[in-house]
Amino acid sequence: MSFDLGVDSLGDLSRGAALLGTGGGGDPHVGRLLVTQALGDRTVRILDPDEVADDAFVVPVAQMGAPTVGMEKLPGGDEPVAVLRAIERHVGRTADAVIPVECGGINSMIPLFVAARTGLPVIDADGMGRAFPELQMKTFAAYGISGSPMALAGENGETAIIDTGTDDKRMEWLARGVTMRLGGIAHVAEFTMSGADMRRTAIKRTLTLGIRLGAALREARRDHRDPVAALAEVVADTEYRHLRALFTGKIVDIERRTEGGFAVGRARFASFGAADTSELELTFQNEHLVAEVDGRVVCTVPDLICVLDAETGEPITTEGLRYGQRATVIGIGTPPVMRTEQALAAFGPAAFRLGTEFRPVEELTAGTAGTAAPTP
Amino acid sequence: MSFDLGVDSLGDLSRGAALLGTGGGGDPHVGRLLVTQALGDRTVRILDPDEVADDAFVVPVAQMGAPTVGMEKLPGGDEPVAVLRAIERHVGRTADAVIPVECGGINSMIPLFVAARTGLPVIDADGMGRAFPELQMKTFAAYGISGSPMALAGENGETAIIDTGTDDKRMEWLARGVTMRLGGIAHVAEFTMSGADMRRTAIKRTLTLGIRLGAALREARRDHRDPVAALAEVVADTEYRHLRALFTGKIVDIERRTEGGFAVGRARFASFGAADTSELELTFQNEHLVAEVDGRVVCTVPDLICVLDAETGEPITTEGLRYGQRATVIGIGTPPVMRTEQALAAFGPAAFRLGTEFRPVEELTAGTAGTAAPTP
Repeated sequence: MSFDLGVDSLGDLSRGAALLGTGGGGDPHVGRLLVTQALGDRTVRILDPDEVADDAFVVPVAQMGAPTVGMEKLPGGDEPVAVLRAIERHVGRTADAVIPVECGGINSMIPLFVAARTGLPVIDADGMGRAFPELQMKTFAAYGISGSPMALAGENGETAIIDTGTDDKRMEWLARGVTMRLGGIAHVAEFTMSGADMRRTAIKRTLTLGIRLGAALREARRDHRDPVAALAEVVADTEYRHLRALFTGKIVDIERRTEGGFAVGRARFASFGAADTSELELTFQNEHLVAEVDGRVVCTVPDLICVLDAETGEPITTEGLRYGQRATVIGIGTPPVMRTEQALAAFGPAAFRLGTEFRPVEELTAGTAGTAAPTP
Repeated sequence: MSFDLGVDSLGDLSRGAALLGTGGGGDPHVGRLLVTQALGDRTVRILDPDEVADDAFVVPVAQMGAPTVGMEKLPGGDEPVAVLRAIERHVGRTADAVIPVECGGINSMIPLFVAARTGLPVIDADGMGRAFPELQMKTFAAYGISGSPMALAGENGETAIIDTGTDDKRMEWLARGVTMRLGGIAHVAEFTMSGADMRRTAIKRTLTLGIRLGAALREARRDHRDPVAALAEVVADTEYRHLRALFTGKIVDIERRTEGGFAVGRARFASFGAADTSELELTFQNEHLVAEVDGRVVCTVPDLICVLDAETGEPITTEGLRYGQRATVIGIGTPPVMRTEQALAAFGPAAFRLGTEFRPVEELTAGTAGTAAPTP
């Protein structure tokens, strides 16, 4: 169902997108401020993917780079529109709609910002239903859409167009090089496609999902309900279906560095009890990739691993992880279309050289005492 | 005067271009092999710059990257033409002629290769009358032509378009990032311009100069003449005018590394005589930047510093410098248009942070015993 979105929905979307960002995706709060300023008291038209014309020209717009850099280097405001115009000029066609590449993190907001500035509608769908660190890690790519030609824009009005044919990994490699030279953050337009191809390859209604997840967290806090149970209720009603509480404990070690233009590192969580000495280790590359409890994998990409503040249920990004923080780590299953062979080749554990096979979080945690989820 | 160039001129041009490469510019021999193969028994039309139409669309094509990488990573053969086609598509105009950006090194040959493959003519001129390491270091830039939009092509068919408006240093920065990601070598088309602008900004007849210098070296060796004297005769007849022998000695130390996509380093030459303990130190960034004898500057960019084999007079590139080699180091003045304030801002000592002011080689060496040149 299409609808009009105003600034009053941005709070929920921001919180839900932080959750779907699985630790990365850039800070949606920054994006929320940009959209709020650009939108004022107007609204953005959010198109249901099933209501987009087959021959519409759909342009995914996003920010790329290390979230740790993005926190300090805010968009000037012209880049997201400049990059849309650059790809339009290059392919000689005007966009009919923009779409998020990822509904996690700041990239839930960038298309809304472009829409607020240009009057274009935003499609309620994305290319992963979460956040991923690399450009080729999208259902668009997994199901045959080419990322090239893509455009990048920097804060000084610079633009670049990259065309690597059908080789999206090569596109990522070159675009990452340009992004690093632009200071670690760039805005991009890539995987341009028809409305029909969008409908065939996108994860649908993920903006709505972000808003619903954010609202569930807000209401749970207001009503003094368990936030994890509240999230599980929303998830159960979607193609994600499964939510599992993986661990609750405090952060005892955090190691992070910027490498190759990514924020990479590990965090260790120890359980509270003196008697229980189990630990959870989280590995991330912008986003959380794998969670292990006492050396046993309990959740891996493309399933979602999210860290929530143990008291408030607020999602914590990898940049926000701090020694001593008390947190609950949850795993959320991805939609079936994210778990196919093609999809796992694009963004499963092997794509990150994790040395483990993908198994669904609901299988990995089946029968584990203490981590069974309060799914309704 | 326009003329037709066949493979029989490539030997002289290769040798002359190696000299004008001032230690860098990439190995013209590799380019010669490419052109020889592409040309067969046909010829390339070389246009005198004064015979190019004012409204002709002129496209400079070149290779960029560290010569040390270029030696090992040879062009596959399609990149130089692919990059021309990429810039043509982007600006929506078909080239009327190609032109070297630098007549030094392999970039004397790349336009001939493109011409051999496409049938386009090559303009007998370039943007520096030598070789320089960075894209913005051109008379084109110094006299108001914008480098953007530029195209890059890699060996796997990848292309990139970069547009940084009038900021050519920014263009260099981004293009270098892409080049590094392409493995250290890329082919580029940049500073596209009209025939009138080319005539206003280019150094004229530098392909002819390369051929003449190469022929002079070849004939000097055949006739057992002093190669330095032979070169000085050619130079005296051009806008370069001055040639000075700076030093003769053997290489006692050589230090080189690839840094930021450039081949950088130093070489020290010691005089042969046991009594005479003077030394020459050469600093390079792809090309030779400054030569100092016993701590005193004797030649700096944009004047040309060339190293010749002491016996044969063959130019030696920085990659070719070897411990124990016996060499003669010469300095050649640049044309007046390369020594203006705008030109020195673009590629004088300050542009390389050398901490020395530009003074012409003929002044720096005036009255120096033992380094006076055999200029006729």
